[in-house]
Amino acid sequence: MPYFDSASAAPLHPVARQALQASLDEGWADPARLYREGRRARLLLDAAREAAAEAVGCRADELVFTPSGTHAVHTGVAGVLAGRRRIGGHLVVSAVEHSSVLHAAEAHEARGGTVTEVQVDRTGAVTAAGYREAVGASTALACLQSANHEVGTVQPVAEVAEVCAEAGVPLLVDAAQSLGWGPVEGAWSVLAASAHKWGGPPGVGLLAVRKGVRFSPQGPTDERESGRSPGFANLPAIVAAAASLRAVRAEADAEAARLRILVDRIRRRVVRLVPDVDVVGDPDRRLPHLVTFSCLYVDGEVLLHELDQAGFSVNSGSSCTSSTLTPSHVLRAMGVLSEGNVRVSLPPGTSAEEVNAFLEVLPGAVAGVRDRLGVTAPEPAAPEADAVEVDALGLRCPQPVIELARAIGRVPVGGTVTVLSDDEVARLDIPAWCGMRGHAYLGEAPVPGGVAYRVRRTV
Amino acid sequence: MPYFDSASAAPLHPVARQALQASLDEGWADPARLYREGRRARLLLDAAREAAAEAVGCRADELVFTPSGTHAVHTGVAGVLAGRRRIGGHLVVSAVEHSSVLHAAEAHEARGGTVTEVQVDRTGAVTAAGYREAVGASTALACLQSANHEVGTVQPVAEVAEVCAEAGVPLLVDAAQSLGWGPVEGAWSVLAASAHKWGGPPGVGLLAVRKGVRFSPQGPTDERESGRSPGFANLPAIVAAAASLRAVRAEADAEAARLRILVDRIRRRVVRLVPDVDVVGDPDRRLPHLVTFSCLYVDGEVLLHELDQAGFSVNSGSSCTSSTLTPSHVLRAMGVLSEGNVRVSLPPGTSAEEVNAFLEVLPGAVAGVRDRLGVTAPEPAAPEADAVEVDALGLRCPQPVIELARAIGRVPVGGTVTVLSDDEVARLDIPAWCGMRGHAYLGEAPVPGGVAYRVRRTV
Repeated sequence: MPYFDSASAAPLHPVARQALQASLDEGWADPARLYREGRRARLLLDAAREAAAEAVGCRADELVFTPSGTHAVHTGVAGVLAGRRRIGGHLVVSAVEHSSVLHAAEAHEARGGTVTEVQVDRTGAVTAAGYREAVGASTALACLQSANHEVGTVQPVAEVAEVCAEAGVPLLVDAAQSLGWGPVEGAWSVLAASAHKWGGPPGVGLLAVRKGVRFSPQGPTDERESGRSPGFANLPAIVAAAASLRAVRAEADAEAARLRILVDRIRRRVVRLVPDVDVVGDPDRRLPHLVTFSCLYVDGEVLLHELDQAGFSVNSGSSCTSSTLTPSHVLRAMGVLSEGNVRVSLPPGTSAEEVNAFLEVLPGAVAGVRDRLGVTAPEPAAPEADAVEVDALGLRCPQPVIELARAIGRVPVGGTVTVLSDDEVARLDIPAWCGMRGHAYLGEAPVPGGVAYRVRRTV
Repeated sequence: MPYFDSASAAPLHPVARQALQASLDEGWADPARLYREGRRARLLLDAAREAAAEAVGCRADELVFTPSGTHAVHTGVAGVLAGRRRIGGHLVVSAVEHSSVLHAAEAHEARGGTVTEVQVDRTGAVTAAGYREAVGASTALACLQSANHEVGTVQPVAEVAEVCAEAGVPLLVDAAQSLGWGPVEGAWSVLAASAHKWGGPPGVGLLAVRKGVRFSPQGPTDERESGRSPGFANLPAIVAAAASLRAVRAEADAEAARLRILVDRIRRRVVRLVPDVDVVGDPDRRLPHLVTFSCLYVDGEVLLHELDQAGFSVNSGSSCTSSTLTPSHVLRAMGVLSEGNVRVSLPPGTSAEEVNAFLEVLPGAVAGVRDRLGVTAPEPAAPEADAVEVDALGLRCPQPVIELARAIGRVPVGGTVTVLSDDEVARLDIPAWCGMRGHAYLGEAPVPGGVAYRVRRTV
């Protein structure tokens, strides 16, 4: 039963399991105590810190363990913002950061800080120029992920770090998606990561803060982990996290090369096997194991359910799969289609046979969903009028786009279709559909109860 | 090799180990996902929440899992203070709370809030009257531990909860030390606990917030755990925590009765076997497994080292064992001796033989430390003068008290000894020594470079 969502959580690496079990016997005591059980725990903690620091590429005394990657991000952002309060209250983030970074930015705004979002191109990548423009004299911190968690695009961290260094602004890198594949290049200042993303156990994050970065931990005092991460150390999990990071790294280059080929195969085959599909993210500068595509006229949640029934566990950034009714902020920032979105992230050890089996199942699954939604090949209808209005109010993704596709043949080339929709996703998916189909998107205007989206038929 | 510090961290309960190992296979995926691995994780998480809530005595939807007891306390305190901000900024805590509560109170003060500390008697217990006096119209929250972590004294939680309810003030109970022994009685509003204290794994705390308590989570938004505990759930550890709590509870009554007898034996025997020892805490209203005593003229760190050498792992609240040079705030609040302090907390399964072996080793260990410090039975010296001054400036605990004991014979009954000391601990231990010896403590006065403590010989 192939599990293709390692970007959410990777199954436990065998080395993590071994180390966890061994340290349940040796590492349950309080490492701050002076007796033998405490000293043993302290030795394990110190060794884990050394190993993790080596993998991160920092000094052991620059690295602390947190209860999760989210805690590492929240603590890192809050600590630098507070430490550099006198410089200013300006924070720079990319528009496609993980929600933990964006939520930390929202909290900063709620406390009176200011935030600039650096935009991305259609592959999801920022540019160093974007950061150069965003950082200023009052910028306390800039944040950039090492690679995007939804589309796999690798960010130009080293270039952005240079820009930040020139401006005297520390750069926090969220390395959650990439740390298992290798150290983050460039002169970052703060780094956050999460063990369960590389096959370590849940319950462990890493926070590295370079010496010299002003850092003021927030919240109640706690002497543990250099005052940067309160609470009793989750030592067995920390030991397992460090051991598995080392093990994963030893296999990383070979596994990356192997998975890269499998992902390239998915990227190539999906567009041939499935009509009306959009493979997103940078095809080359990307994580080795991750590919994301969106299928027109498909409800993401139903497709995930179909694939799950067929034995494949994948994720989706479609709004249809979440309770919020808003699509993934990453796809929105990229300006690409969000409906029928599927993220495939292969865990280490995924076989070519598993990928082939997925490619065999996928076309039927998509076709099945489309059939049930009543999507048929658009009839070459005779144009009815120069302008047609489609009332899709009350309909949810992917219905507004399906209605638009049905209506486009009702106007001649040069004619316009106006879609009325109160579905937030239409704002993203109607322009994306136009881009895929080669029609011109004319813009939107508010109407009672929703928004009118205007499209000119051009082909 | 007996480990007698279960109040710091208990060794993993066999059920916790079993559950942890089983859920490493079943519980590594993201419980928010729709595919089978995610659904399985969600089932495990829901079942763990049900089990933990039943043990706590609350509804499952009132309970969230946090990464530690410290996180539970910090989150609980901050959440209620923020939720009841309009009522006022006053916080009430007991003087003998765990440092996580006191640090949360300090953080509240630093943000402009006010804090009242309810004092304790010489057994370490608060009174309901103390809380009645402390809470007022602007009190947002009161905190009280269920039992003290250093001396084992059980607090009158039910009575204090009644007082708080009358005043309309929610009561947060830190149940870290007692939850394994049984549910907290009384109408508490918020409860915090820590799994590794009952033999669960590290990395799991519990936070229960009764419906109707105004609660506003602080920090960046995170949808997990009802928005009250950010980060990826540490599911294998959560499953192990819940399973072990249930298992520990099933054995709790029998084990409590058994350990209570062993602790009574220690309380009785220590005062017979070791000269000049003070057993502290309530002899009856106490945790079943915990006893604390202090030995005059003994350096706590050296004694711990001696006991560790002899194979016994115990803890100490003596200043001599910490880097801060201040004694335990609990012993200070109780006004009892802090030097040569030893806390014995027996893990479940401790045998009578192990306790007997400890009682055999202890007198020699204490005598050895005293010998090395040059403490001999005070010579019946002939009085030299009506008043003697002892310069103990620069000497560290337990030396100032040793100097005092040596000097008392140099004055007649009715005469005074003045000890000059710059050791913070003298403020606690000199009056405590007077109490133990039956001499009158006359008070302190500042002198250049330290403090003068005056004692009248009365026997």
